[in-house]
Amino acid sequence: MIPILSVVGRSGSGKTTLLEKLVREFVTRGRRVGTVKHHYHGPVTVDMPGKDSWRHKQAGAHAVALSSPETYFAVCDTPGALSLETIVHRVLDAVDVVLTEGFKSGPMPKIEVNRLAQGLPLLCGPEDRLVAVAADWATGAPVPHFGLDSAGPLADFIEAEFLRGEDRQGLDLLVGGRRVALDAQAEVVLARVVRSLVGDCRDLTGGPTIELRIPGGSA
Amino acid sequence: MIPILSVVGRSGSGKTTLLEKLVREFVTRGRRVGTVKHHYHGPVTVDMPGKDSWRHKQAGAHAVALSSPETYFAVCDTPGALSLETIVHRVLDAVDVVLTEGFKSGPMPKIEVNRLAQGLPLLCGPEDRLVAVAADWATGAPVPHFGLDSAGPLADFIEAEFLRGEDRQGLDLLVGGRRVALDAQAEVVLARVVRSLVGDCRDLTGGPTIELRIPGGSA
Repeated sequence: MIPILSVVGRSGSGKTTLLEKLVREFVTRGRRVGTVKHHYHGPVTVDMPGKDSWRHKQAGAHAVALSSPETYFAVCDTPGALSLETIVHRVLDAVDVVLTEGFKSGPMPKIEVNRLAQGLPLLCGPEDRLVAVAADWATGAPVPHFGLDSAGPLADFIEAEFLRGEDRQGLDLLVGGRRVALDAQAEVVLARVVRSLVGDCRDLTGGPTIELRIPGGSA
Repeated sequence: MIPILSVVGRSGSGKTTLLEKLVREFVTRGRRVGTVKHHYHGPVTVDMPGKDSWRHKQAGAHAVALSSPETYFAVCDTPGALSLETIVHRVLDAVDVVLTEGFKSGPMPKIEVNRLAQGLPLLCGPEDRLVAVAADWATGAPVPHFGLDSAGPLADFIEAEFLRGEDRQGLDLLVGGRRVALDAQAEVVLARVVRSLVGDCRDLTGGPTIELRIPGGSA
């Protein structure tokens, strides 16, 4: 499963700037990065190129997508927010790591950005899965500390702690919008059973990608 | 599986206008509609609200998403175009019908828009799965004909031929980016086996939604 880390902190603390630097740092290391930003208030509005997709949305379409040979984009209304894991499963599948901006209340490990000039204590406690702090003062939190501009050392830390090359080929399994990790043997069994049931008896590594959604009772 | 129909036709024939009218017609009937537009040339560029996601993308992120309680949007680079079915599976799952603009070379049933003033024959032959024509002249194609403005009768036709209420709760299964239809009994078996392997022994209708991706050998 793709590692997901959340960059959190108060408004104005410098989350976007740090995230931007982390993205650049990973890209120079040959890593593909996905990002998710949590937008708390109101619907998302997007100006779209060509305008045809925009006309579809204005006409009342629930979801619109635009597909090109190199890129696609989608705007979808959701009945309640999708879980972060669902978004990553669906649209950020082809990356090595996902960095989120926000999602403090989510289940992912967190890096808090904190700026002395704001004069405020850390937002996160240990119960928030705080794994690192990026700050310009000694916060005292019992986790590794990095400077506000230290994208390089922070990327080293993320690679050492959260990026394992062998994870990328594993199954990605969500149950009720939450990730479920299976051990390696259970993954092989599940993959083989599904492949045989859908009529493809090649082994785990030889077959095509399979994507399956089994709708829930009340979905 | 969600029905997908492609509205095709030459540039200037009125595809977007007809599609817009169809969307409005379905929405007034209480249907949820998803649309996909095929963008043939070059990357998709989108102006994003708030600009933070845009900063992520500019920094080199491969894929960015923005999530709010009511909507999410995503822009993702893809290694080669994703199949239409993959896009629908991933991002247009919560709709009753998907209408595409373009995708003439795709595998979906097609409605061709053709305008007399353009003085050109139909693009589609029977091998293109042409199922209806919207035109202001008698094209002679052996499929139902509708006027260029006849969104109501065309929606009646689509509902009668392609929308079945009971289809919505079925599995959605892609193998190598293509939809695979299983019969009802095979769906139940696959769903029960997967649920039991992931530790949920409730039956097909009682459990949570399960989403599974088994990566292919060369994916």
